[in-house]
Amino acid sequence: MKTYLECIPCFVRQTNEILRNTIDNDKDRWEIMQQVLRDLADYDFCISPPEAATRIHRLIRKKTGLEDPYREAKRRSNEIALQLYPELKTRIKTSLDPWETALRLAIAGNIIDLGIKNEVNLSDIERSIEDALRQPLTDGNAAKMKADVEAAGNILYIGDNAGEIVFDRLFIEEMPTEKVTFVVRGYPAINDALMEDAEAVGLTDIVNVIDNGSDAPGTLLADCSSEFLRAFKNADLIIAKGQGNYETLSDVPKPIYFLFRVKCHVIAYDAGIEVGKIAVIKRGEGKYV
Amino acid sequence: MKTYLECIPCFVRQTNEILRNTIDNDKDRWEIMQQVLRDLADYDFCISPPEAATRIHRLIRKKTGLEDPYREAKRRSNEIALQLYPELKTRIKTSLDPWETALRLAIAGNIIDLGIKNEVNLSDIERSIEDALRQPLTDGNAAKMKADVEAAGNILYIGDNAGEIVFDRLFIEEMPTEKVTFVVRGYPAINDALMEDAEAVGLTDIVNVIDNGSDAPGTLLADCSSEFLRAFKNADLIIAKGQGNYETLSDVPKPIYFLFRVKCHVIAYDAGIEVGKIAVIKRGEGKYV
Repeated sequence: MKTYLECIPCFVRQTNEILRNTIDNDKDRWEIMQQVLRDLADYDFCISPPEAATRIHRLIRKKTGLEDPYREAKRRSNEIALQLYPELKTRIKTSLDPWETALRLAIAGNIIDLGIKNEVNLSDIERSIEDALRQPLTDGNAAKMKADVEAAGNILYIGDNAGEIVFDRLFIEEMPTEKVTFVVRGYPAINDALMEDAEAVGLTDIVNVIDNGSDAPGTLLADCSSEFLRAFKNADLIIAKGQGNYETLSDVPKPIYFLFRVKCHVIAYDAGIEVGKIAVIKRGEGKYV
Repeated sequence: MKTYLECIPCFVRQTNEILRNTIDNDKDRWEIMQQVLRDLADYDFCISPPEAATRIHRLIRKKTGLEDPYREAKRRSNEIALQLYPELKTRIKTSLDPWETALRLAIAGNIIDLGIKNEVNLSDIERSIEDALRQPLTDGNAAKMKADVEAAGNILYIGDNAGEIVFDRLFIEEMPTEKVTFVVRGYPAINDALMEDAEAVGLTDIVNVIDNGSDAPGTLLADCSSEFLRAFKNADLIIAKGQGNYETLSDVPKPIYFLFRVKCHVIAYDAGIEVGKIAVIKRGEGKYV
């Protein structure tokens, strides 16, 4: 997906939030903000939004010397989500359609996106859960995805945010886990999950987990490690969580299920789904596959 | 008031909205956006937010050739507000305290601010009216202002937005109108009222109306005409509507009543009043006067 004009205010808002959260004096904040504005003015916006965001975040990391400004926020998100785990597990097991319930919960967890909102608390997550369980889904989409998962020899599940990966774990536990490889980012990217988060929520105990070698808040193939690219190439089916993965992979000719909450108007326009809705989009069918 | 770091995302958001509303092709939109980003990166942010906004709007006007991109929106706002006029007039006349009711309505009208929100419709205005009539005001503030207005030999009432000036008219009709000079902007500035708006809502029939000679969405004294500066200097009391006038005049040593709705966190922080509240702030008392 290309970067839209509407992404620019969002980059600048994000920059401001990170600077507020990580730097304690106005002089440095202004200096970095002005550098980000200068860089944004020079970008070629055929690139995808996560590519521009990656450059901004690299600049902020370099200027602040902070390797992982969201580490503490990620730890808290994992903790909150893990507290919900037992109750959600029961909810899946006792539901009429455990697969669809788990799928919906995996999307509900995508609310924990600190690139969009500065803070996500327990009540935001609980609201997202109830909402995701009630929203209509395109008829047959959940069942079609289940059949595709069963038919695939191996599945690459590309995660998104910390905290959210507890919801991914619940969904993956409804799959033949031996076929699933879970992917985290290689280096800090906003509050996206890293290997330490996968370990913290027990994902490493149930599936193979690899990192993609990149610090982008999405999957920029050109920036990923060869290990990841091999796994990507060999996957029969890919499940990609969150807007960042949609923005970077929506034009890639592989069979990919994109699962996310539509959180901004740009994605809503691009994907043809309203803001606030839950999205299960299959791409890469037909001539591409 | 100085420009805060938080103002930068807001400038960029405003730029995007104007470009969407006035230019029909992405190439030109991107080119102007990138120029605005470059300019923002070079500004000295000791200047007030309306000063930065003025520069952005001038650039957009120059690049697009559109002298007054908000003219039609302003016309609509005047029309909607004029439809409400008879009902609001009755409400003032039949209320226990017509002065305070009219003061509250004048602040309610400040919701019609297209620098903050892309569109304001009738139901937004009606909500703002009911809310402004119910909110608590600092005890005695309305009565104190009434006494100051009665005591002043001449009053300069600096207006803000089109549509809103119908609410200002209702308030001014509760004052000794022969003492009041109403001020509009000299040239287009977002949806701020111009002379043609003052004429359209009948303000020119009841008070002397002058323009300030400037195209800033606020009152940048350095940019105003000598006629306005004379009136400003000679005024015993100034009433300044809206955030833009607060941002540009809050540090000026003159007795000024600032009346506005708090619509952003930066103003809330600077004025010490929560977002959503109605503000009646007197400045320039004590050592300054």
